[in-house]
Amino acid sequence: MRIGVLTGGGDCPGLNAVIRAVVKTAIHQYNDEVVGIKDGFSGLIHNHTFALDLDKVSGIMPRGGTILGSSNRDNPFAFSQTVDGKRVEKDVSSVVVDNYNLNKLDCLIVIGGDGTLDIAHKLSAKGLKIIGIPKTIDNDLSATDTTFGHDTAIGTVMDALDKIHTTAESHHRVMVVEVMGRDAGWISIAAGIAGGGHIILIPEIPFEIGKIAETIYQRKARGKHFTVVVVAEGATPKGGDRTIKRIVEESSEKVRLGGVGEMVARELESITGLEARTTVLGHIQRGGSPSAFDRILATRYGASAVFHAHEGDYDHMVALRTPEIVAIPLEKALHQMKRVPLEGSHVVTARRVGISFGD
Amino acid sequence: MRIGVLTGGGDCPGLNAVIRAVVKTAIHQYNDEVVGIKDGFSGLIHNHTFALDLDKVSGIMPRGGTILGSSNRDNPFAFSQTVDGKRVEKDVSSVVVDNYNLNKLDCLIVIGGDGTLDIAHKLSAKGLKIIGIPKTIDNDLSATDTTFGHDTAIGTVMDALDKIHTTAESHHRVMVVEVMGRDAGWISIAAGIAGGGHIILIPEIPFEIGKIAETIYQRKARGKHFTVVVVAEGATPKGGDRTIKRIVEESSEKVRLGGVGEMVARELESITGLEARTTVLGHIQRGGSPSAFDRILATRYGASAVFHAHEGDYDHMVALRTPEIVAIPLEKALHQMKRVPLEGSHVVTARRVGISFGD
Amino acid sequence: MRIGVLTGGGDCPGLNAVIRAVVKTAIHQYNDEVVGIKDGFSGLIHNHTFALDLDKVSGIMPRGGTILGSSNRDNPFAFSQTVDGKRVEKDVSSVVVDNYNLNKLDCLIVIGGDGTLDIAHKLSAKGLKIIGIPKTIDNDLSATDTTFGHDTAIGTVMDALDKIHTTAESHHRVMVVEVMGRDAGWISIAAGIAGGGHIILIPEIPFEIGKIAETIYQRKARGKHFTVVVVAEGATPKGGDRTIKRIVEESSEKVRLGGVGEMVARELESITGLEARTTVLGHIQRGGSPSAFDRILATRYGASAVFHAHEGDYDHMVALRTPEIVAIPLEKALHQMKRVPLEGSHVVTARRVGISFGD
Amino acid sequence: MRIGVLTGGGDCPGLNAVIRAVVKTAIHQYNDEVVGIKDGFSGLIHNHTFALDLDKVSGIMPRGGTILGSSNRDNPFAFSQTVDGKRVEKDVSSVVVDNYNLNKLDCLIVIGGDGTLDIAHKLSAKGLKIIGIPKTIDNDLSATDTTFGHDTAIGTVMDALDKIHTTAESHHRVMVVEVMGRDAGWISIAAGIAGGGHIILIPEIPFEIGKIAETIYQRKARGKHFTVVVVAEGATPKGGDRTIKRIVEESSEKVRLGGVGEMVARELESITGLEARTTVLGHIQRGGSPSAFDRILATRYGASAVFHAHEGDYDHMVALRTPEIVAIPLEKALHQMKRVPLEGSHVVTARRVGISFGD
Repeated sequence: MRIGVLTGGGDCPGLNAVIRAVVKTAIHQYNDEVVGIKDGFSGLIHNHTFALDLDKVSGIMPRGGTILGSSNRDNPFAFSQTVDGKRVEKDVSSVVVDNYNLNKLDCLIVIGGDGTLDIAHKLSAKGLKIIGIPKTIDNDLSATDTTFGHDTAIGTVMDALDKIHTTAESHHRVMVVEVMGRDAGWISIAAGIAGGGHIILIPEIPFEIGKIAETIYQRKARGKHFTVVVVAEGATPKGGDRTIKRIVEESSEKVRLGGVGEMVARELESITGLEARTTVLGHIQRGGSPSAFDRILATRYGASAVFHAHEGDYDHMVALRTPEIVAIPLEKALHQMKRVPLEGSHVVTARRVGISFGD
Repeated sequence: MRIGVLTGGGDCPGLNAVIRAVVKTAIHQYNDEVVGIKDGFSGLIHNHTFALDLDKVSGIMPRGGTILGSSNRDNPFAFSQTVDGKRVEKDVSSVVVDNYNLNKLDCLIVIGGDGTLDIAHKLSAKGLKIIGIPKTIDNDLSATDTTFGHDTAIGTVMDALDKIHTTAESHHRVMVVEVMGRDAGWISIAAGIAGGGHIILIPEIPFEIGKIAETIYQRKARGKHFTVVVVAEGATPKGGDRTIKRIVEESSEKVRLGGVGEMVARELESITGLEARTTVLGHIQRGGSPSAFDRILATRYGASAVFHAHEGDYDHMVALRTPEIVAIPLEKALHQMKRVPLEGSHVVTARRVGISFGD
Repeated sequence: MRIGVLTGGGDCPGLNAVIRAVVKTAIHQYNDEVVGIKDGFSGLIHNHTFALDLDKVSGIMPRGGTILGSSNRDNPFAFSQTVDGKRVEKDVSSVVVDNYNLNKLDCLIVIGGDGTLDIAHKLSAKGLKIIGIPKTIDNDLSATDTTFGHDTAIGTVMDALDKIHTTAESHHRVMVVEVMGRDAGWISIAAGIAGGGHIILIPEIPFEIGKIAETIYQRKARGKHFTVVVVAEGATPKGGDRTIKRIVEESSEKVRLGGVGEMVARELESITGLEARTTVLGHIQRGGSPSAFDRILATRYGASAVFHAHEGDYDHMVALRTPEIVAIPLEKALHQMKRVPLEGSHVVTARRVGISFGD
Repeated sequence: MRIGVLTGGGDCPGLNAVIRAVVKTAIHQYNDEVVGIKDGFSGLIHNHTFALDLDKVSGIMPRGGTILGSSNRDNPFAFSQTVDGKRVEKDVSSVVVDNYNLNKLDCLIVIGGDGTLDIAHKLSAKGLKIIGIPKTIDNDLSATDTTFGHDTAIGTVMDALDKIHTTAESHHRVMVVEVMGRDAGWISIAAGIAGGGHIILIPEIPFEIGKIAETIYQRKARGKHFTVVVVAEGATPKGGDRTIKRIVEESSEKVRLGGVGEMVARELESITGLEARTTVLGHIQRGGSPSAFDRILATRYGASAVFHAHEGDYDHMVALRTPEIVAIPLEKALHQMKRVPLEGSHVVTARRVGISFGD
């Protein structure tokens, strides 16, 4: 078999571990050939490919990023091009099909998020034999129990919280830490519990700034003159909590700059009179050497994808249904958001140990 | 309620996170009082106890060790004492019962391994109301899906393997790394996959030294002049493999010094003529700041133990039955070894990516 | 002798190592008593002190923060108080002198930055016997070769750059990382070299946005479709470079939100058309477990301070004049800024390996 | 210019940073060409070389090992060969000269320890134009203030001590940790101070087992039921201390297995009756991503070596004479051991904070 492999979308620790497992399994188990495709679907549009052998994947597992490169602007069904000085979107999917054939591929393994896998599904309809591997650092995909990169991101945020915790304690500060999670609060709640956060704000639980201030006062009454607030970037105030909402809505630019974390910090300063500082963790959450959990899961995904390619399970993606890796139809897997359940173990545990959600 | 808490047995990352969760849950949720018992059951024999309040557990989650102290030599049913210059074992369990009552405990949370929980079960029979929390860094307890500390230990071993991997590659060496796992190979197989080990030796799969040498030759033939061998301390050669077995049996002292890792390295040197070096990771595997996964699991265990204390589920221990934490009778939980299944995902994945088990 | 010790100003890794060394040296070498003063000079204003013995400093060296607490708003010569509902500044330095005497102190070790040591110097004039220990994470004090905490901060920034580097490379991005350094670029240049930054902007070298864009183009021409830009928070554009300067000057609020890093990223996007992303590392740079270098330097400072207390070198501070620790008069040490020399080894080395300063 | 570069001897964090700096400086500053030589002098014996361009050094700075490979058994003046089934040593230095010329080298940068640089010096006499870069993880070379890799090794040992410290404290153990340092105790004393070791044994200060036991008793008397002993592999008992000396001398094989750490632990167990455990850190000390300090020093060495090549300073090596990098004749630099001075800051500081050297 001749297997192509590409990575699409944002960065995520474990991509190289998946690529390595695909190559090792294909070569050691099946005597396959593997073709690396550069920069996501761009590589199939511009035919940038290369032979991916054991040497090229040697020693790459601990490294962040992807040796294949990635791209966010490469939808073959709406490819952005400049024609006569004007930006137009063109369907170049037939070029992708041509290059797939030109490279004599028997199958294409696509590692990417919802957007990338959606394209993969559409390309399946055009005859490409595709196996998907889900990638979302936010763990917000309901089709799989968890995804690689998520555990590493939680660790990175926890390390940052450990650092900020001692400063907050020594210097009597309210420290607000804004972390990834536009639609789901998985990273913030897990890292928040692990990092000793006192207040955790997630998209699933609208918060009231007054309740947060109340927690801070209660802590102060117990002699704790510091508070660590972990805020998912997608956390939003309750409908009734006009103050913040107004700022967030009215000033789209400010929000781009400052985000919900900065808004929360300012409101808390103005209500409590305490010094509040914000840290936005940003891109470091997508980098770093993957954790053991992520390396193993990524390796399982990669090895299973090759297995399912040989089983002929095309237009499917691999998914963890603990303890198994299964293949499920892309159609059923796409666009199914997984949110933090309000009665699940994370929320219940957090409440038990006295963490407030500002609700 | 007045809840006592103690930690027994060897070190394990996450002990402080459990203690913290017990105290936070007891005080925040139930308005309980918590009594800390020093150095495992010794503290109940010598009545070394102290009030364990929120202040005492503030900031302890990231730290290794246990703020309560631990002890390995404190079995109240066979307590070692010196009488007339002679070492004798005495049953002092009634002293434990007395001190339990003297401290006005309504319940005792015991965090420990199989030995410690076995004592806890026997004390239950003497009337103590006990909730157990399982602790085994080796993850070799079948009653629970996994235990805290294990993920951290895997991470520590993986970090060591990452370091050794680049040296092995640059310097063309066979590097043998001996890791924890007397009866089960969970740490070695997980860290071995995650750390890019080429050969993994676990107690569950007896190895042949010849097969290992063969893998090294095959790698050499592919231009790979180095090999990383991960060996669980409990790994043993196949019955037929006389050479090593003999050395292991005859020289009990040498084995204490060198272990199976050193034995494998020597045999490989003598067979292949290549330089082979051994590293025994030892006690660093039991230390360090717990990973996010371990902190969360430890927090769940601690919070659930207090919950089950209030439910009256005595003579039980908490256990993870993903995604739930449940309470199971100690009687059923004890002495049930969990080994790496030969057809499970770890072994299957390892074989798929070309890892050899020396079999 | 009875020695008081306090920590003032912002957080800095190594504070606990200094405190520990003061206590250990005082007790082991001189049989002194040590008194801990809470929250900087606040503790001498409100008389919050406690006996600081060997037990209290056991195991604190690896921890961030300060077990003594700190404060930024506690200048005894201009102490902020609310009188009749109005905020007034009062000289309470005589209270400090009284409490110094009340605690029967023979000497006071003050660990802090320029502001804190300036107060210490003024208190010396009022009769207090003071030994200062310099603390600046930015390393911008000319009186000493280097300060503790600085090496740890460089390590934290380098780790972040390592993470961002792989993302930038895989995803073809311009990544702008803003780091500490209002007046001096020590952290940015050291971490920038160590973290593989391609462009480093420091306060000492005014930059031109056009030159930065040029470097990005040159890299692109060599097939490098990514660039990592490290920006000290105090970096400023050249006088002639109106565009950014205007934005920075006109929009004080935006700068507070976005900083120079965000400004640079926007300008680069608008000039080059490439995606540019900013990360502001913020408070994590002040936290974390100190590096070996910082622990050793902090230990030397602490031990030497006690030695110089016994020598009677009051109104002095300890300083590193490699390889010696010496005591220098506070008067001479204060307010002497140390900037990155334009012909020094950092700048020369950076230029040699092709790093641009945007000049 | 056409510059060859090779790495020889044992592993050391920072080798890749040196190589990267050589290539970047040579190409960016001087428009030179660089030739990579595989596996130390072996590459010049077997003519294994390749063009080393900017692409090949991209992203290698954070990685352990050396992309050039290394070798310990490649002395061209005594090259081990099998002739007629017999092992003989042959002078193949003229082959090295031939291959140097064949590769049209104008200069050769040799990165290595004392042994490697000794060969380099001898090759200079045969007409090769050589610049040396010193490499010793032990920092035991008097010609330079410090060497790259050393700071990283200290950090690795400190991390291990941090982990072992909490276990020792919680579990009331004597923990003996054996670290690198055959002739000089730099790593053990620096990491011992930074890692909170209570007793540090270095080759420069012969120890008495009885004095160590005494320190353990004194700690016990103060309520400290644990002790961390850091032992350099080259530490030796005082002449009068027969017991250990005898064991060390008589049982060469046992020492190879167990080392001085194990010997100390056993003696302490037999004298004090306390449980003592040994950890031998081994090869992990030579691996890992280099610290910021080491990356910067390595970069300076690499950049300076190219500069001195263009200055014509052959048969010299670069060395740190703080704050400068200078070139010194190899003849003067070789075989000059740097030991820990008994009156230097490390020993003085350690004694001040109460650390015992067992003397």
